[in-house]
Amino acid sequence: MARTLVGVMGPGDGALARDCQNAYELGRAIAQHAWVLVTGGRGVGVMDAASRGAHEAGGLTVGILPSTDLKGASSFVDVPIVTGVGQARNNINVLSCRVIFACGIGAGTASEISLALKAGRDTILVEPRDETVAFFRALQPAKLHVARNASHAMQIATGLLNAAQKI
Amino acid sequence: MARTLVGVMGPGDGALARDCQNAYELGRAIAQHAWVLVTGGRGVGVMDAASRGAHEAGGLTVGILPSTDLKGASSFVDVPIVTGVGQARNNINVLSCRVIFACGIGAGTASEISLALKAGRDTILVEPRDETVAFFRALQPAKLHVARNASHAMQIATGLLNAAQKI
Amino acid sequence: MARTLVGVMGPGDGALARDCQNAYELGRAIAQHAWVLVTGGRGVGVMDAASRGAHEAGGLTVGILPSTDLKGASSFVDVPIVTGVGQARNNINVLSCRVIFACGIGAGTASEISLALKAGRDTILVEPRDETVAFFRALQPAKLHVARNASHAMQIATGLLNAAQKI
Amino acid sequence: MARTLVGVMGPGDGALARDCQNAYELGRAIAQHAWVLVTGGRGVGVMDAASRGAHEAGGLTVGILPSTDLKGASSFVDVPIVTGVGQARNNINVLSCRVIFACGIGAGTASEISLALKAGRDTILVEPRDETVAFFRALQPAKLHVARNASHAMQIATGLLNAAQKI
Repeated sequence: MARTLVGVMGPGDGALARDCQNAYELGRAIAQHAWVLVTGGRGVGVMDAASRGAHEAGGLTVGILPSTDLKGASSFVDVPIVTGVGQARNNINVLSCRVIFACGIGAGTASEISLALKAGRDTILVEPRDETVAFFRALQPAKLHVARNASHAMQIATGLLNAAQKI
Repeated sequence: MARTLVGVMGPGDGALARDCQNAYELGRAIAQHAWVLVTGGRGVGVMDAASRGAHEAGGLTVGILPSTDLKGASSFVDVPIVTGVGQARNNINVLSCRVIFACGIGAGTASEISLALKAGRDTILVEPRDETVAFFRALQPAKLHVARNASHAMQIATGLLNAAQKI
Repeated sequence: MARTLVGVMGPGDGALARDCQNAYELGRAIAQHAWVLVTGGRGVGVMDAASRGAHEAGGLTVGILPSTDLKGASSFVDVPIVTGVGQARNNINVLSCRVIFACGIGAGTASEISLALKAGRDTILVEPRDETVAFFRALQPAKLHVARNASHAMQIATGLLNAAQKI
Repeated sequence: MARTLVGVMGPGDGALARDCQNAYELGRAIAQHAWVLVTGGRGVGVMDAASRGAHEAGGLTVGILPSTDLKGASSFVDVPIVTGVGQARNNINVLSCRVIFACGIGAGTASEISLALKAGRDTILVEPRDETVAFFRALQPAKLHVARNASHAMQIATGLLNAAQKI
C-alpha cells in the first residue's frame, strides 16, 4: 500500500537560515513519523535542508527535479525523479503530497502554494510573513493553515492526516 | 518571424464581472496592436472574455488547454493547444508570452503570476486587490507592474515591448 | 471556432533530403487548405521545412518548442509555444492535431507516432521504411495510414477530415 | 546518495501473460539487487506485475502515475508520484531510470522505448517480437539491447551498471 508522502517546499538559492532550520526540523519529524519526504530535489536551501533532516533521521527522501539529469540534486535525496519539465514540476510536487509545508517564500514556492490550494491539498505555512498569510487567506482559506514554528506545523499535519484516516 | 504573444490570465469559474470586462477590453486592444492573444483556453471567465474581445476585433487567439481534448474550450479560440498536462500548463502559458496581464485572482491565476515572475516575464496586475500587490511586491518587484485599468495596462505593455525592441 | 490543426512531425538534425522535401510540400498543401500547421518548432530538418512550406504559401504556422525560450526556433514559425517540458512536449504536439503526418523516422518521431496512436489520432506515414510500417501495423493498425508521397498523404488526410465533418 | 532507479515498462490492459511473468521476475530481481523499481504505476498488466514482484522480495517500488490522484494505482507501489500530465509522464519514467526493461509492446510502451533511446538511456527489450527489434535497431542501435528472457535481461543490466560504476 502506498506510503504517506508529505512535501516540504521553499526557496532554493537565497533561502533564509530560519526557513532552512524549520525545513530541517520538519524533515526529521517526517522521517520519525515514517512518512516519505517530497521536495523539489535540488541541493540548495529549503529542499536540501529538509532532505538532510529526513536522511539523518533514517527516513526516505524523494526529490522531484526540474532538470533532465541528476546534476544539482541534493546528496540527501534517495529517490530522484528526473522530470525534465522545469517549473511545471511544481504541480507534480504538490499533487504527489497529502500535506505540504511551505518554509519561506519565493516565486517558485508561491506557485507551489497556489497549485496546492488549486488541487485541494492541505498547505501549512510555517512562520510566514504577514503579507503571505493575507494573500492566501483572501484567495482560498479552506485548505490553508498557519503554523508558528516547525513543531506547531507537525501538530497540524498530524491532526489532518489522522482525521483523514478516520474517514 | 515569430509574432508577439501576449497573455491574459485570470479566473475561470467565479470570475468577477469587472475582471471579465477588463479582459475583454485587453483582448480587443491586443488584437488592434496585431499581437497574438494567449489564454488558458477555457470557455469561462477571464479566458473566454479576453478571447471574445480579441476575436471580435479580428485578432488571432491561442488557448493553451489543460485537458486532453477540445471539450470546454472557448468558442473564440482559433488555435487550441491541447496539452493534457492539467495545471502544469500554467507554466507553458507564461513561458510563451512576452507580457502577461492578470485580471483578477484565484489559485490558478496566482500560480501563473508566480511562474511568470519566476521566469522573468513582465507581469501586469490589472486593478488588483491590495493584498495581491503587497504579496507579489514583497516577492519579486522587478518585473511586476500595477495598472489601474485596462487602458493603463496596455500603456504599460506597449512601453515594455517598445523598449525591448530597441535593444 | 477552432481552426483545424494538422501536424508534420519528423527528424530535426540528420533529416533526409527526401523527408524534408515531403514536409515542405505538405506544409504548402496544409496552408492551401487553410489548415493550421503544427510542428515541433525547431529550425532544423522536417520541422523547419514544413514551416517554410506553409509560410511561403501564406499559411499559419505553430511551433511547439521543447525549450524555455525562443532560441533555436524556426524563423518560419508564426506562433511559438514555449513549453519548457523537453520531449514531454511530443505528447502536446499530437494531442493538438487532428491528423499527423510523419516524414522520416528518428527516436523523437517514433515517440510522436506512438503517442498519436495511443491518443487515437490519425497518423499518416509518408514514404516510410518497411520496418517502420511493420512495427506500427503490428502495434495498432486502426489509425495508421501509409502514403507513397506527399500528395497521396494529403489525399488521405482530406478524406479523413471530410469524413469527420460529416459526422 | 541517490539509489539506482531501474524501470520496467510494458502494456497495462491487454498485457500478455508471458510479459507479466517476465515483469514479475524482473521486479523480484531488481529488489534483490537493492535497486529501486520504477513503473508507470497503474494496477494493471506489466506495471502491476513488476511492482508485485519487487514488493514481495522486499524492494522499494515507485509508480509514476499519469493521473491527478491515486485512483487506479497498483497496490504494490510504495511511492506513487502523481504527475497529472497524462502520457507526457512517459518521458519522466525514462529520464528517472538508469536502465529500462521493456516487457511486451503497445503504443505507450513504444513511446517509452523511443523516448528512452532519445534520452540515451540503456533499454533492454525482453523477449521482443521480431518487428520490434527490427524497428528499433534501424532507429538507434547504440543503447538498444535484446534479451531472450528475464534472467538474461538482468545479466545485461548488471553488466551495464557495473561498467558505469567503474567510470
